Amino acid sequence: MTKKKQEILLAGISVDPDSDIAMYRQLYESLRQAILQGRLRPGHRLPATRTLSVELGVSRNTVLLAFDTLLSEGYLKGKTGSGAYVSDDLPEKLLHAARPAAKASSMRRNRRTGSKRGKLMAAYAAPVGESRPFKHGMPALREFPFDVWSKLLTRQMRRLPYTFFGYGEAAGYRPLREAIATYLRTARAVHCEFEQIIVINGSQQALDLTARVLLDPGDKVWIEDPGYLGARKAFVGAGGAIVPVPIDQHGINVEKGKQLESQARLVHVTPSHQFPLGVTMSLSRRLQLLDWAAESNAWILEDDYDSEYRYSGRPLSSLQGLDSNERVIYMGTFSKVLFPAMRLGYLVVPPDLIDMFVSAKSVADRHSALLEQAALADFIELGYFGRHLRRMRLLYQQRQQALLEAVNQQLAGLMEMTLSDGGMHEIGWLPGHLDDKECAVRANDVEITAQPVSEYSLRYGTRPGLVLGYAAYNEAEIKTAVQSLATVLQY
Amino acid sequence: MTKKKQEILLAGISVDPDSDIAMYRQLYESLRQAILQGRLRPGHRLPATRTLSVELGVSRNTVLLAFDTLLSEGYLKGKTGSGAYVSDDLPEKLLHAARPAAKASSMRRNRRTGSKRGKLMAAYAAPVGESRPFKHGMPALREFPFDVWSKLLTRQMRRLPYTFFGYGEAAGYRPLREAIATYLRTARAVHCEFEQIIVINGSQQALDLTARVLLDPGDKVWIEDPGYLGARKAFVGAGGAIVPVPIDQHGINVEKGKQLESQARLVHVTPSHQFPLGVTMSLSRRLQLLDWAAESNAWILEDDYDSEYRYSGRPLSSLQGLDSNERVIYMGTFSKVLFPAMRLGYLVVPPDLIDMFVSAKSVADRHSALLEQAALADFIELGYFGRHLRRMRLLYQQRQQALLEAVNQQLAGLMEMTLSDGGMHEIGWLPGHLDDKECAVRANDVEITAQPVSEYSLRYGTRPGLVLGYAAYNEAEIKTAVQSLATVLQY
Repeated sequence: MTKKKQEILLAGISVDPDSDIAMYRQLYESLRQAILQGRLRPGHRLPATRTLSVELGVSRNTVLLAFDTLLSEGYLKGKTGSGAYVSDDLPEKLLHAARPAAKASSMRRNRRTGSKRGKLMAAYAAPVGESRPFKHGMPALREFPFDVWSKLLTRQMRRLPYTFFGYGEAAGYRPLREAIATYLRTARAVHCEFEQIIVINGSQQALDLTARVLLDPGDKVWIEDPGYLGARKAFVGAGGAIVPVPIDQHGINVEKGKQLESQARLVHVTPSHQFPLGVTMSLSRRLQLLDWAAESNAWILEDDYDSEYRYSGRPLSSLQGLDSNERVIYMGTFSKVLFPAMRLGYLVVPPDLIDMFVSAKSVADRHSALLEQAALADFIELGYFGRHLRRMRLLYQQRQQALLEAVNQQLAGLMEMTLSDGGMHEIGWLPGHLDDKECAVRANDVEITAQPVSEYSLRYGTRPGLVLGYAAYNEAEIKTAVQSLATVLQY
Repeated sequence: MTKKKQEILLAGISVDPDSDIAMYRQLYESLRQAILQGRLRPGHRLPATRTLSVELGVSRNTVLLAFDTLLSEGYLKGKTGSGAYVSDDLPEKLLHAARPAAKASSMRRNRRTGSKRGKLMAAYAAPVGESRPFKHGMPALREFPFDVWSKLLTRQMRRLPYTFFGYGEAAGYRPLREAIATYLRTARAVHCEFEQIIVINGSQQALDLTARVLLDPGDKVWIEDPGYLGARKAFVGAGGAIVPVPIDQHGINVEKGKQLESQARLVHVTPSHQFPLGVTMSLSRRLQLLDWAAESNAWILEDDYDSEYRYSGRPLSSLQGLDSNERVIYMGTFSKVLFPAMRLGYLVVPPDLIDMFVSAKSVADRHSALLEQAALADFIELGYFGRHLRRMRLLYQQRQQALLEAVNQQLAGLMEMTLSDGGMHEIGWLPGHLDDKECAVRANDVEITAQPVSEYSLRYGTRPGLVLGYAAYNEAEIKTAVQSLATVLQY
């Protein structure tokens, strides 16, 4: 081997003594790339390790280790010390395949795409970002008893046997399912046994699993219009054909839905507190919806996302509890009552769908994280859940009032607000000549988040309005934020 | 109102003083059911609350509360004290709909099914159950430093601001993504930046998301045969058409795959340690697979489920690291290295697929639980991960040896075992005349779990054999279990 050849070889081979990566690993990688890219051809004899160590200024052990690895992986043949050569049973064609992707034609690039379903799932992204007035859907995190939560986690870590930390049941941790069933029966008049409860990772997974279990591609789904975007994502992602149905003061307009598509397979509703409009679905509308579902063999997905917060009127019992035909799948989440980062929620499914839903959960991700399920079961059973809920109900009601007062004082003539019976947000209705999207952009300029209502509409527009979440912000923050809003809405 | 009418009314109305449910709630529910089922007809005047309280032996307040609720929900009209009657604007037809489901015809019952996809997802269920020899896929939970884990959870609860417990980024907690990227680059020669890492809930979600993002219904998928059932579930659940491809001593038989279906869209492989056979895919076979994928615009899902455990030979770098065409999606899990109940794993996706995968994760369940992600980032960065891995590598290797010795001593002539280079299970090959499913049943009789290899085959059978997980069991347990196995295999 001549000096020249070594130089050619060494041109592409380098090691960086300051790198975090071990020297032998760097050398190994350099040589491997040279082989794969054809700079070192099959049969090419490599310099002696001693020579290479001198040339590269590394220890001989480094070189030996790199060579050993390449020998054991089949890139080199022969002996480590000297006489190693590039393996000649790596066919030229295969080596070629491993060259850099420059050759990929633009046609190929164009075909570098996922499935149609993948594209549909990508069509919407979840909003992420800091919490500031009036970002909605956010509970008062400052008020959550994280010290208690931390203690319950630690307590369960100590109490639970190590065998608990293997795989669990797909439907969830049984004590949690029992606690949820008891809560729902008493607080929401849901008719259920614990076997019908499936613990899932928050309401988005409830939507996704329901869409996948109940819809085949092309199946029609009634969605509320305006309505929750997360639901739309899940149904579209599962290939469902969405049918927007308008909302009136009684909730979803069932008659209109029937006219539009009487043979829908599924309907998604938020009867306790319609998102985003805040309407409570009336009893006769509820019965009408159940009647239609029973007659047309459709499923109702009742999304009770923030029903825990009711400040006036009496809490209406769930749609599920009214149904005698087992046509309702009920879903709820702990994101709004406790905190979103926990990622826990539940589905209540009719008995004959249990197996299918449990299997779907198992295929989706086997089961939800167990330690947090165990801590949550404790949190409910030991009474912390009820206590936190009562505190938040009082607090949020005060904040709702504070928002109303601030709006009436600061935004008189510019914004109209009628309080709904509960929830965590209100709509601030704007004069008809304003564009709510434009107003949202102006609000953002003064660091106020205010989603335009029109963003939630597909076909049935409403008056322009802004969705104002209030639960996570104290009265002073609310007041200041409304003042800021006033400065930009007067244009 | 006559005494008789009250009796008729009261026949269906009862309250149970020993129930957990509040008395007024019980009464409310009884009356509501009576109305919905038509036992109390529209216009029917209810007894005075005083009368009812005497008849039922409950306080008048209880009755008042129940009536108030029914009035506010629209079931009753009139006044609470006396003179309340059943609302007459609940149309007969609607009330009828809410009657018990007895009328549901058998035709309707038959239509009470989920989607085709739902049925496909339900076709396989995840195995759950206690951990006992030789249940595979289970790490040594007894050896996990749960005290450290508990401390890290508590530490993060204290350190993290409350705002952290809102919604997080769909792709995962950034410090964890960075820690994973660093680990994969150095330990597995994966070419990646942290942006390519998507934190998911264990490998089942990796399979499910990949199937959904890359496959449209009917798309062909090569799967290893025999191979991992969880993968099959995900692909079938997403509507993929699976093409079983046989395994030889070099791994998946690419030539055979091309003959069977050259236009497959995706291939799922376990190159480091084929599941269940334990083969390591050879370098030339790896290059051949990459070449085919590049030529036919197919995707490779590299499932590196237990690659952390390598006891002999040098660790082969990942298939992903060999690929210059960005055709490989790499997946790994923390279930095997730490513990399954945590439900955390990761995907490494090519740059141009990041958006689509992140959206799919967001639609599926927004993001994984944040506190455990933060604790895991600490666990890796503070060196606990590396330490635990090194300890387990040593321990599992000893257990692998113990299994081999016990099999050679106790099952000579009945079981043959050749150790693979790593992993957490071995195959105990049985004489050709034995039925491995029958042997598994016999093993179960002596409380030994031993999955038959044939259970993992679709088309390409192997010799009969049993999959013996050893990682979770100590040497004494392994020895005893092999003895038990010997008593039932000699038939």
